[in-house]
Amino acid sequence: MPPSPHVEKHFTATEVVRDIVIGMSDGLTVPFALAAGISGAVASARIIVVAGLAEIAAGSIAMGLGGYLAAKTDAEHYAAEREREIRETVELPDVETEEVAKVFREYGLSDAQMAPVVQAICGNQTNWVDFMMRFELGLEAPDPRRANRSAVTIAASYVVGGLIPLAPYMALSDVISGLRFSVVITIVALGVFGFVKSSFTGISPWKGALQTVITGGIAAAAAFGLARLVS
Amino acid sequence: MPPSPHVEKHFTATEVVRDIVIGMSDGLTVPFALAAGISGAVASARIIVVAGLAEIAAGSIAMGLGGYLAAKTDAEHYAAEREREIRETVELPDVETEEVAKVFREYGLSDAQMAPVVQAICGNQTNWVDFMMRFELGLEAPDPRRANRSAVTIAASYVVGGLIPLAPYMALSDVISGLRFSVVITIVALGVFGFVKSSFTGISPWKGALQTVITGGIAAAAAFGLARLVS
Repeated sequence: MPPSPHVEKHFTATEVVRDIVIGMSDGLTVPFALAAGISGAVASARIIVVAGLAEIAAGSIAMGLGGYLAAKTDAEHYAAEREREIRETVELPDVETEEVAKVFREYGLSDAQMAPVVQAICGNQTNWVDFMMRFELGLEAPDPRRANRSAVTIAASYVVGGLIPLAPYMALSDVISGLRFSVVITIVALGVFGFVKSSFTGISPWKGALQTVITGGIAAAAAFGLARLVS
Repeated sequence: MPPSPHVEKHFTATEVVRDIVIGMSDGLTVPFALAAGISGAVASARIIVVAGLAEIAAGSIAMGLGGYLAAKTDAEHYAAEREREIRETVELPDVETEEVAKVFREYGLSDAQMAPVVQAICGNQTNWVDFMMRFELGLEAPDPRRANRSAVTIAASYVVGGLIPLAPYMALSDVISGLRFSVVITIVALGVFGFVKSSFTGISPWKGALQTVITGGIAAAAAFGLARLVS
């Protein structure tokens, strides 16, 4: 079943945007919160930069590879379920025909009304299996290029996001000045990111901006408080 | 349209497992890689523990709130698209009827075969809109309790995962001994986690175990190398 151009566009845009959002929201938040957190416990901006860069390396790779494996797993899960459905149309055709009928029954169709449709769908194995995958299991065929693209998009977004809060500690050797500038530019960056992100998901941009700023703030405050407490 | 018990069970299990996987794979990997990374640059196990705990606090909150906002955004996106479809069935009924017909045409049905089905679906606005949401847009109605549950599941999994690699640095004051024990118990934990995770996604458990160990290893090696380089 070839998806209509409308649906395909809809999904591709969503997935790339989602990957950027996944990478950048954590990239802006966690290195910022970590640097702010340990600035309450260590006196050297150098250690903060080292820890921050180590976090960006670890976080971007972990999230990028995580995205790669998630996309691969989705593809393998889809292939395994599809194999199962193909087998079932051969071994249990009555059960599978009834499952097609069940989908239409949920829309209030009588057996007489749906009979020609059910017969047409089950008369062609490819259509039959496609129908079961999408309408019984709710699974869409994954894009085979998604795994690599997803990994690179997430990791790059994390690195870009993470370098923003860390830049002041690199430029200024004083921890307190670094922390102040880091707080200001990260709040601005989180706000802009939240604002732009919202335009893709259809929620209010100002609400989106506020949400990301608050998320980053809570994470940083918790990291700061915990680091103070244990040091 | 009430989903069948089979489908509902399928999705609920997948979402909770996915949240645990999201939280724990990053929780096991990033604090481990951060601690290993800065162990190449700082001599004090105390600073590693402070940085590690700050990272766990920041990471768990950022990911937990991220999961909360993602679930909320999904729910708002679904509601906004549903509003639009309802409006379109009133304002552009011919276009929407044709879109229902298009779905069936993709399965090789003739206009005569599908006529009674299309009429039945478009004769009831709720069924009509439900059909468009699921089959044109590929959107499932989100579970309203998902946002809170998702946030707590992701954050808790991150904390549990993150404390495992950090425990040796807490117990041992020597950085090198801490690093060695941390590497060993984290490899074991990543392997067990990858093995168990695979049983939910249907891929080979040993392959899954290997994947998570390699992911953690690459992230830690990169963090370690980068921290060495800049310190």
